[in-house]
Amino acid sequence: MPYPEHFSCFILASRPKNEITPETFRLETVPFNPNPGRGEVLVQIQYLSIDPALRLLLNVEGAYREPVEIGGVMTGIGLGVVLQAGAGASLVPGDMVSGSLGWTEYAILAEHSLTKIDIPRGGQVLDFLGPLGHIGLTAVVGLLDYGQLRSGETLLVSGAAGAVGAIVCQLAKARGAKVYAIAGSAEKCAYLENEVGVHKALNYKTPNFKEEFAAIDPFDVFFDNVGGEILNLALTKLNVHARVVICGRIAGYNNSEPTPLTTYGNLLPKRAKILAFSLVDEAARFVKAKEILLNGIQDGTLHQKYHILQGLSTAPKALNMLFSGENNGKLVVKL
Amino acid sequence: MPYPEHFSCFILASRPKNEITPETFRLETVPFNPNPGRGEVLVQIQYLSIDPALRLLLNVEGAYREPVEIGGVMTGIGLGVVLQAGAGASLVPGDMVSGSLGWTEYAILAEHSLTKIDIPRGGQVLDFLGPLGHIGLTAVVGLLDYGQLRSGETLLVSGAAGAVGAIVCQLAKARGAKVYAIAGSAEKCAYLENEVGVHKALNYKTPNFKEEFAAIDPFDVFFDNVGGEILNLALTKLNVHARVVICGRIAGYNNSEPTPLTTYGNLLPKRAKILAFSLVDEAARFVKAKEILLNGIQDGTLHQKYHILQGLSTAPKALNMLFSGENNGKLVVKL
Repeated sequence: MPYPEHFSCFILASRPKNEITPETFRLETVPFNPNPGRGEVLVQIQYLSIDPALRLLLNVEGAYREPVEIGGVMTGIGLGVVLQAGAGASLVPGDMVSGSLGWTEYAILAEHSLTKIDIPRGGQVLDFLGPLGHIGLTAVVGLLDYGQLRSGETLLVSGAAGAVGAIVCQLAKARGAKVYAIAGSAEKCAYLENEVGVHKALNYKTPNFKEEFAAIDPFDVFFDNVGGEILNLALTKLNVHARVVICGRIAGYNNSEPTPLTTYGNLLPKRAKILAFSLVDEAARFVKAKEILLNGIQDGTLHQKYHILQGLSTAPKALNMLFSGENNGKLVVKL
Repeated sequence: MPYPEHFSCFILASRPKNEITPETFRLETVPFNPNPGRGEVLVQIQYLSIDPALRLLLNVEGAYREPVEIGGVMTGIGLGVVLQAGAGASLVPGDMVSGSLGWTEYAILAEHSLTKIDIPRGGQVLDFLGPLGHIGLTAVVGLLDYGQLRSGETLLVSGAAGAVGAIVCQLAKARGAKVYAIAGSAEKCAYLENEVGVHKALNYKTPNFKEEFAAIDPFDVFFDNVGGEILNLALTKLNVHARVVICGRIAGYNNSEPTPLTTYGNLLPKRAKILAFSLVDEAARFVKAKEILLNGIQDGTLHQKYHILQGLSTAPKALNMLFSGENNGKLVVKL
């Protein structure tokens, strides 16, 4: 296959105030460079992972690391295939890799920034954007290392039909926990109850959600992907020594005005904890976490549902879908 | 000294909505019983510790343990002297003891509920209601076990001139931390800067407090005795991996309407923790904590200031003083 003369990538054009708008990104055509330097490889991007945290990287502050620069290529985790290897590189053409590839069709990247993919028995390539990638690591580190979930305990999960949430529910079920799941549609709740097998799924968009919530058991661990009103409500359901693990707060990423928390006074009588974490700090836990995840893939207890959009041009729309809740499963753009 | 025929004690007459009122407690005269049973001792109470947490025990819920019953003797930690020992007791008349003695002049108590006091070199009997008692244990467990304060880190303390706060500041200083203290009067701030030696004390009742606060360094550990608006402000000053240790929330004990928290969104980008704790869970840490506290008394780095009121009848007023901030030092009632 001859190389193209040009290719497309998304440039951050302006910082959005709330939702991403047509002014946020600019699709740009740039000249193709087929020659990776020493220690570099040329990668053709095949899949991009669309994650809520990407929204935070568009703000001046509030993310775990430096925001994307105006005029820079939009960042993002993806899967790709090596087309050319520079001098001294050990990857070879045809190798599949994952890493921070960016919203672009091609990229020349330092080999050390990439991870070579070997698809395990029972898995598929996409799982490296799911349970075998950052999604699975987030679920294991948050639920087991921070949450310290034990068999017989009660778990509450918000954003439970999302990429991380669904893996969290499955890990907890496999460990003998009673799982309550919160999601945003009847379809998602049906998936959680019937396919994932949670004890009960609650649709927060129904009018009787607060009453339904009032009737559930108090939790030992709350794995929170959402924040805002859901977090406020959850703090009324603490068991003694409860752990509230803050993984994300998607309810707040698009809003400049935060939802006030009024229920945090319950933390003290319950001697509870709120634990916010990010994978950026957790590299030391990855080897053990990957082992847990690989076991789950191979014994069939872990399964991710994917929602795949076609073509790089869909990426900005995809990111907005996470906030409207239109996606069903781990959102991925196929190039 | 002949025994009296009657003695006084405070009975909980009604549950207060906000502040304690004259209707909350009733001073009652009851017949004296000089005969402790098997394993019991008769104690004459000499000092009562007046602590913010007592306010919580007047509510139907929200405390760590069962509330005081209407018609029951008000509970409270105190120091006393053994007057008579029942059969099988190993304490003898003249022994000083600490324990949950109650707001009463005399009490017959199970020996196993009491701790015999031996005053160490450099200490005084009152220190068993301060650094060598529940105050010191709270400070050590919160700051060192939960807060994990390390040398060179920055500590923020609210209610810093209070009983626990002042010990926390001294423990932190002795461990090489930079200490910012928040208190409620110029006199308390002067005490903290000049006698305790904190880096800077801020008076939250001055009009420029928020500007002063905005100029301090971000903290690694926040030891919070206050909650409410102070907690909300503090969450804007998190260092990466900050630990917010919730020891008390005196700002909320008298209020039925909580102050809303609007700044908790900072927890996630800073990967911070909120850790609420209570001594009721921490018995396993007491031996090590007592050793730390005894060393601090003996090497002169720990010193508690006491505010002593005279007579059992002052106890209800004393409890209100904690909330108005009128006390200067650890509040104690001398009988």
